[in-house]
Amino acid sequence: MHNGPDANFPVGKLAILLAVLQDHEWRKSVEQELTAGGYRFTIGRVGAMDMMKVIAAIETAAKNNHIIDSESYREVHAVYHAIIEALQGVGRGEVQFGNILRTVGLTFSIVRGKFAGAVQHEGDWVAVAVYGTIGAPKKGFEHETIGFGFNHI
Amino acid sequence: MHNGPDANFPVGKLAILLAVLQDHEWRKSVEQELTAGGYRFTIGRVGAMDMMKVIAAIETAAKNNHIIDSESYREVHAVYHAIIEALQGVGRGEVQFGNILRTVGLTFSIVRGKFAGAVQHEGDWVAVAVYGTIGAPKKGFEHETIGFGFNHI
Amino acid sequence: MHNGPDANFPVGKLAILLAVLQDHEWRKSVEQELTAGGYRFTIGRVGAMDMMKVIAAIETAAKNNHIIDSESYREVHAVYHAIIEALQGVGRGEVQFGNILRTVGLTFSIVRGKFAGAVQHEGDWVAVAVYGTIGAPKKGFEHETIGFGFNHI
Amino acid sequence: MHNGPDANFPVGKLAILLAVLQDHEWRKSVEQELTAGGYRFTIGRVGAMDMMKVIAAIETAAKNNHIIDSESYREVHAVYHAIIEALQGVGRGEVQFGNILRTVGLTFSIVRGKFAGAVQHEGDWVAVAVYGTIGAPKKGFEHETIGFGFNHI
Amino acid sequence: MHNGPDANFPVGKLAILLAVLQDHEWRKSVEQELTAGGYRFTIGRVGAMDMMKVIAAIETAAKNNHIIDSESYREVHAVYHAIIEALQGVGRGEVQFGNILRTVGLTFSIVRGKFAGAVQHEGDWVAVAVYGTIGAPKKGFEHETIGFGFNHI
Amino acid sequence: MHNGPDANFPVGKLAILLAVLQDHEWRKSVEQELTAGGYRFTIGRVGAMDMMKVIAAIETAAKNNHIIDSESYREVHAVYHAIIEALQGVGRGEVQFGNILRTVGLTFSIVRGKFAGAVQHEGDWVAVAVYGTIGAPKKGFEHETIGFGFNHI
Ligand SMILES: [Mg+2]
Ligand SMILES: [Mg+2]
Ligand SMILES: [Mg+2]
Ligand SMILES: [Mg+2]
Ligand SMILES: [Mg+2]
Ligand SMILES: [Mg+2]
Repeated sequence: MHNGPDANFPVGKLAILLAVLQDHEWRKSVEQELTAGGYRFTIGRVGAMDMMKVIAAIETAAKNNHIIDSESYREVHAVYHAIIEALQGVGRGEVQFGNILRTVGLTFSIVRGKFAGAVQHEGDWVAVAVYGTIGAPKKGFEHETIGFGFNHI
Repeated sequence: MHNGPDANFPVGKLAILLAVLQDHEWRKSVEQELTAGGYRFTIGRVGAMDMMKVIAAIETAAKNNHIIDSESYREVHAVYHAIIEALQGVGRGEVQFGNILRTVGLTFSIVRGKFAGAVQHEGDWVAVAVYGTIGAPKKGFEHETIGFGFNHI
Repeated sequence: MHNGPDANFPVGKLAILLAVLQDHEWRKSVEQELTAGGYRFTIGRVGAMDMMKVIAAIETAAKNNHIIDSESYREVHAVYHAIIEALQGVGRGEVQFGNILRTVGLTFSIVRGKFAGAVQHEGDWVAVAVYGTIGAPKKGFEHETIGFGFNHI
Repeated sequence: MHNGPDANFPVGKLAILLAVLQDHEWRKSVEQELTAGGYRFTIGRVGAMDMMKVIAAIETAAKNNHIIDSESYREVHAVYHAIIEALQGVGRGEVQFGNILRTVGLTFSIVRGKFAGAVQHEGDWVAVAVYGTIGAPKKGFEHETIGFGFNHI
Repeated sequence: MHNGPDANFPVGKLAILLAVLQDHEWRKSVEQELTAGGYRFTIGRVGAMDMMKVIAAIETAAKNNHIIDSESYREVHAVYHAIIEALQGVGRGEVQFGNILRTVGLTFSIVRGKFAGAVQHEGDWVAVAVYGTIGAPKKGFEHETIGFGFNHI
Repeated sequence: MHNGPDANFPVGKLAILLAVLQDHEWRKSVEQELTAGGYRFTIGRVGAMDMMKVIAAIETAAKNNHIIDSESYREVHAVYHAIIEALQGVGRGEVQFGNILRTVGLTFSIVRGKFAGAVQHEGDWVAVAVYGTIGAPKKGFEHETIGFGFNHI
């Protein structure tokens, strides 16, 4: 595979690229890498002023696409905390959207699988990456934002 | 340009990719896009337990590489707040590293230039993207993290 | 009194035990200790996704059970800040429940009276302890949490 | 066992009581309950103005007493986040001690094992409870505080 | 001008005094100083439990009184962040009002113009000062609060 | 008293003006108002990158100038929390100075006495106002900031 991410692309980077690249052709390479690495992954979109809707959209995507077992509180707990971490990055300082008069348009990815840093770590891990825009509830009055959460599962 | 980011890649996405791609060959395309778009940009690395050192490394890189005019408080103020926003994403909830017994190894990018969302916005904007690892002060006991700050300049 | 808390149980520990022990027989000893120590105290329950309802339930219990004088802003101010401190422990990082898609089922205690640490302190103090579960709005998908606030009154 | 916690005492409550009861005779019942339930647990003390020392003391106790496998990042990650959650309760709003001129004297417990709420959850979970005093660096000028963190492991 | 603020009153202090002085006769001197200094400024009032309404009131006043160009995202972005900073001071720790059962009655000022500290800084800057009361939703059960945000524009 | 604050200036506004007005002639009127109202008050200055030093300077001024009884934990507790509230306004989002590479030069006031809002409240209250500059550790690369804390005592 000469044009895709190399074998050293860790799970978090793959999740980030999946959320950020959107319809760019590089995304195919990222998806191939994810498939080759045995990862479960999904991608979704949500636009809202309501933080609760954003969390629910990501959590529901994780369940409906079988990234996690929706009957396992253990897995739901792992993803929930990863989502909150990601939204702390999106919100930068305040984990609030509509309450402080801002709206978001977000693409999110959820990736689950093995995780190797300097060493190989046992078990599954889950990465949640969220990329998009945040700003005033007026078309174009918004700028980019990203967030990333990571947890053992 | 058939293999690089398309013309719709906004400034924030370029900054994120610049920090995330590291030595991957795609980075060349991102840099070409940045150059073609007339952006000023730089990339740097910093590893520390001390938040102060991380902030200083990014701010110094912005000045030394002429992303901002180091004699203009206006520009320093813009970058400082973008850095803090990025570190809120890196830290997720607590803007602290060594104080809460964690260390970071980060690659950061700073990009300055035009910004067009749904509409073209006047003036320059600055994006700070920070990608790397955060974790215990023990090799390999760390996971990925990303942060992104954005400001008018 | 051979089976209850010893005379060194300070006001905060009594409040915590009162909220945590629920229907366990040890609670009787705690209540005896509180009565013997001349404390005013009450216990209540509240389940909600709405942070506002939780605060109102605790504050109303403090007033209706004459732990504080509801006509004294001074006393209401003391209890309000103790409640917020307790909910910072319950929420751990974000003082939000429903807004971030979580619900709580809480038992709270409010204790007012003397406070002696290494030395005896003058005047009355108030302790608010909140114990229960926090989690997804799905039966059983929740875990325990505790919070504690303390103030001079 | 007529005098100890009943069989419905969940893992978090056991951890809280272990940290709070200190040398009270009830603690024996709590320890019996923990042993009978197959939990791994430990208790320790730390006094410091330096947040880093508090985190290190709890993490080290978890490793040295084999509550977690110190060679598993997965387990270290689980405990670290539980510790931070507990310290958010202790600090109430600011996860800082000496930096904001306060010192702590804390007893902590770490409990690992099964977790059953409304339903039985698979796998192991870890609870960290921290109880003690927080205040000015002057003997007796301090009041009680508690914090609790909980995670799947 | 013997009775007004001297020439060294910087933009932030003028904004603070404008919000704080209300109907006091000194306010005339402050307004004269602002006019003489070429500042654009406005003053407004908002009472609400809803943070969103407070932000909207300040932002709308900035637009309607031509402190900023409502068609420029750059200017709206500058003011938005200044407002959030001001509300962090008003809220002290939690950027929430009604969600945590408190209501506010606020006077706000917005001042735009030159900014000179130890040196003269280029370009325009914007100051948002917010002064008033915060407290329980019961007449008189409230106390004073102030917040201040500042940004380059 | 034709030129000073009118009788409706509440304790918080007096504290804010005392800190903000510095050497302006209006300050005499504010001090007369404070003396006439039976308030105890003091004013001080502190410059530091270390948050701990700022807190210590304000707390020490309160004790040495007999605003509070330094032997009473009750009074020290009241002032400590008011100081933290004030520094939340100064820091806007992060209660950190040097840790995040910023330094402050602050004037603070502490005022103690009666407090009347819509109604007269019993007992003493304490206001802490902090005004000055915050910014980079480079002369002139800083802007104004204010914070205010208030508590029953
Ligand atoms: Mg982590
Ligand atoms: Mg922004
Ligand atoms: Mg306290
Ligand atoms: Mg949890
Ligand atoms: Mg600033
Ligand atoms: Mg208050």
